[in-house]
Amino acid sequence: MKHSLIRYFIGKLLQVEAVLLSLPLVVSFIYQESTRQKLAYATVILGLVVLGSFLSFKKPPQLRLNAREGIFTVALSWICLSMFGALPLVFSGEIPNFFNAFFEIASGFTTTGSSVLSDLSILAKSSLFWRSFTHLIGGMGILVFTLAILPNSGSDTVQLMRAEVPGPVFGKIVSKLSQTARILYTIYISLTAILVLVLCLAGVPLFDSLLLSFGTAGTGGFGVSNAGFSIYPHPQLVEWIIGFGMLLFGVNFNLYYYMLIGYGLSAFKDEEFKTYLAIVGAATLAVTVGIAGFYSSNSDALRTAFFNVASIMTTTGFATADFNQWHLITQMILILLMFIGGSAGSTAGGLKVTRIIIYAKMALAELRRVGQPRRVVSLRFNQKVIEKSTQVNLSHYLLIYIVVFILILFSVALESKDFTTAFTAVATTFNNIGPGLGEVGPMANFSSYSNWNKLVLTFSMLAGRLEIYPILILFAPATIKGLFKQKN
Amino acid sequence: MKHSLIRYFIGKLLQVEAVLLSLPLVVSFIYQESTRQKLAYATVILGLVVLGSFLSFKKPPQLRLNAREGIFTVALSWICLSMFGALPLVFSGEIPNFFNAFFEIASGFTTTGSSVLSDLSILAKSSLFWRSFTHLIGGMGILVFTLAILPNSGSDTVQLMRAEVPGPVFGKIVSKLSQTARILYTIYISLTAILVLVLCLAGVPLFDSLLLSFGTAGTGGFGVSNAGFSIYPHPQLVEWIIGFGMLLFGVNFNLYYYMLIGYGLSAFKDEEFKTYLAIVGAATLAVTVGIAGFYSSNSDALRTAFFNVASIMTTTGFATADFNQWHLITQMILILLMFIGGSAGSTAGGLKVTRIIIYAKMALAELRRVGQPRRVVSLRFNQKVIEKSTQVNLSHYLLIYIVVFILILFSVALESKDFTTAFTAVATTFNNIGPGLGEVGPMANFSSYSNWNKLVLTFSMLAGRLEIYPILILFAPATIKGLFKQKN
Repeated sequence: MKHSLIRYFIGKLLQVEAVLLSLPLVVSFIYQESTRQKLAYATVILGLVVLGSFLSFKKPPQLRLNAREGIFTVALSWICLSMFGALPLVFSGEIPNFFNAFFEIASGFTTTGSSVLSDLSILAKSSLFWRSFTHLIGGMGILVFTLAILPNSGSDTVQLMRAEVPGPVFGKIVSKLSQTARILYTIYISLTAILVLVLCLAGVPLFDSLLLSFGTAGTGGFGVSNAGFSIYPHPQLVEWIIGFGMLLFGVNFNLYYYMLIGYGLSAFKDEEFKTYLAIVGAATLAVTVGIAGFYSSNSDALRTAFFNVASIMTTTGFATADFNQWHLITQMILILLMFIGGSAGSTAGGLKVTRIIIYAKMALAELRRVGQPRRVVSLRFNQKVIEKSTQVNLSHYLLIYIVVFILILFSVALESKDFTTAFTAVATTFNNIGPGLGEVGPMANFSSYSNWNKLVLTFSMLAGRLEIYPILILFAPATIKGLFKQKN
Repeated sequence: MKHSLIRYFIGKLLQVEAVLLSLPLVVSFIYQESTRQKLAYATVILGLVVLGSFLSFKKPPQLRLNAREGIFTVALSWICLSMFGALPLVFSGEIPNFFNAFFEIASGFTTTGSSVLSDLSILAKSSLFWRSFTHLIGGMGILVFTLAILPNSGSDTVQLMRAEVPGPVFGKIVSKLSQTARILYTIYISLTAILVLVLCLAGVPLFDSLLLSFGTAGTGGFGVSNAGFSIYPHPQLVEWIIGFGMLLFGVNFNLYYYMLIGYGLSAFKDEEFKTYLAIVGAATLAVTVGIAGFYSSNSDALRTAFFNVASIMTTTGFATADFNQWHLITQMILILLMFIGGSAGSTAGGLKVTRIIIYAKMALAELRRVGQPRRVVSLRFNQKVIEKSTQVNLSHYLLIYIVVFILILFSVALESKDFTTAFTAVATTFNNIGPGLGEVGPMANFSSYSNWNKLVLTFSMLAGRLEIYPILILFAPATIKGLFKQKN
């Protein structure tokens, strides 16, 4: 392991976090919050600046990381960011238990949106802002962010990027990595800004518009207040706007880029995009039928179905209904959507639509091959043949996904009341959604778990966000051996 | 498709079923049951003899089936056997609804043991006998049975055998297939006879000893009476005997053969066998700790834990406790065991221990490989390298398993009260166990489902028993096309 280089990267990252934390401090001054609140943020900022400068004081001679070191650094970065990001909440006394605060902020950075809080009114505006702001940062990947603003990152850091950007196929848009990051980042911020504007026009106060947009852009889903949308002048309009907003951020960002550079709407002839829309459409229809009986009008049922389907499918996790009350089959549709997730190359979590398409094609190919063992079936995705090695990798991913899922499930089951709660608690954190069913439903929270299981579920969110491998690497024998072997 | 040959095989099979059905008819005479009861069995026997003779009247010129036709015939055989085997129960008026009777007898032949009956006292002795007897027949595979007694089956029928004998690795013991079948069959019947004898010595009446042994040997698990073991003079002894009996039948039968031909105990140095025992041991220990609070003595807790772990792991499904009342984590252990199942080449269902070992090794290899993409890790099972193609096939199997599981789950969820019920209803039928949790727990049954979902769950049992592919082939495009193409 190149200790000095990893230390340098982490140091830079903590400095960036210090800059980001200055925003909630500004919010704290604007809303004239208590001195303790301001001090909590100021202390952590100061600490990060000092620690960050110390770690990155000496620039290493070369900036090359190998694959293992690269993804090790990514995993470590997310853990550090979440741990230090949790401190202001501890120091301010809003979430005095560190494990709770770590869970909450990791939930923010991983754009999960699961919460340990039953009452949002205990949070000061600055902390409400910080919590939702972590969604925005996490959404596009803090490291893409860091790469885009860090000078001289060049192609040496491609390994970090590869581990960072979710989804099985990452089409490198342009050859220079930092430029790619900047393009994606510009699209991301522009879309977020448009959403803020539209929400303001719909009568939502600026503060709430910002926070809701952060949660939507990062497909995170932290709430803004206990009251939900009902306090705004046009709650139904807000529901439609955010519903469509979530859909937009569940799309592969490369498609927006291709659209902008002249491909126009033909960029959306993408197979994943069409499947994504088809699944949302079909699920919305099915859920509308399933919940029609609960609502006075069909349009209410349609709006609620669309919003909650879009919310779960894009792994955002805003909820406008307590789907714990719905019929089992409607709940099952939502559970299935949790595992599917959004598009590759978007801010969404889950297995991703691309993987689901390829799994479905592999399964169908098996059906066609059955009893005709000599038949060769070649699978295509977007007209291109899917290599055997890709299929093998995807099979391995599914296997690892299941194994890690079961391990987390058993730990969580130790303290869960029923199978539904345990299963969906893991499903919702591992796929970075937010609410589950049963005791962790949309009107409940994760506070009843012990510190141990909060840590396990935090691990679940991080593993899900980084597509498992970067977090697993922390436990890989080669890494542990490598930790004790200093390299330059 | 070679219609005439498939017709010939099915015809022979129905004749065999007629012979098998004469046993419950004899029971009916011994216990002097009603005329309607005797007539119900006699009518079906007569019908099967006539239909069987008609179908197999003309022997086709050659007995060669290709792979697709072979497994198609296997799937068809199990459906026919279950459908005709259900008729006596319909005709006698004991289970007037055909879908219920079909479910019950398919549950018997697939050695599942799930039931639609809440009260066993409505069944005559003859039907109790037939129901449990189907476990014995199904256990070793009716086709192995048929092959063993059908003359001139030779090596042409190897495709049927391959589809029939469960598990990913089927070591062909001797070169001649019908001889293999006879050897396995002799071991099977001998072990069953020993179990009957031991149970009789323990004070269990002969009739009950027979039925309990059938259920144990086939790893089926249909009950004998509403009262359970409490009516026998030494209920705890019976529990231990059947507990160990189930374990014996969850072992790969090849090991017994190797032991007999001179390898002695060294036959049991098999990796799957050792893992199988380790899992049973660990699960028993964990469950004992988990349920200790419910029992007055630790020995009661241990006995109950061992019996129910052995019962679920071997996919038998006898239950001596309502594990619906247990703590979630203890239930989760049972649910996990449902998916693991018994050894390959045994009468048990589930994914089989061999597959689980290989999946675990593949997952661990991924962990070792992570971040070292160029590292080649070769996996071994019983000291032999696991071919890449085997790994790919196993991955595909897992994928198909998940897809079929989800499809069945969605149908069942339409009528289930909660997620636990729906999930375990599918898990228990697909893995051929018997009881699930929630509304299909050990003290409940499957009668509340509609005819449609009884059919779906019957399909689930058949698909699980035949390791999915033979049942899938019924729906494969090539099969449907082939059905309309007569070949000789």
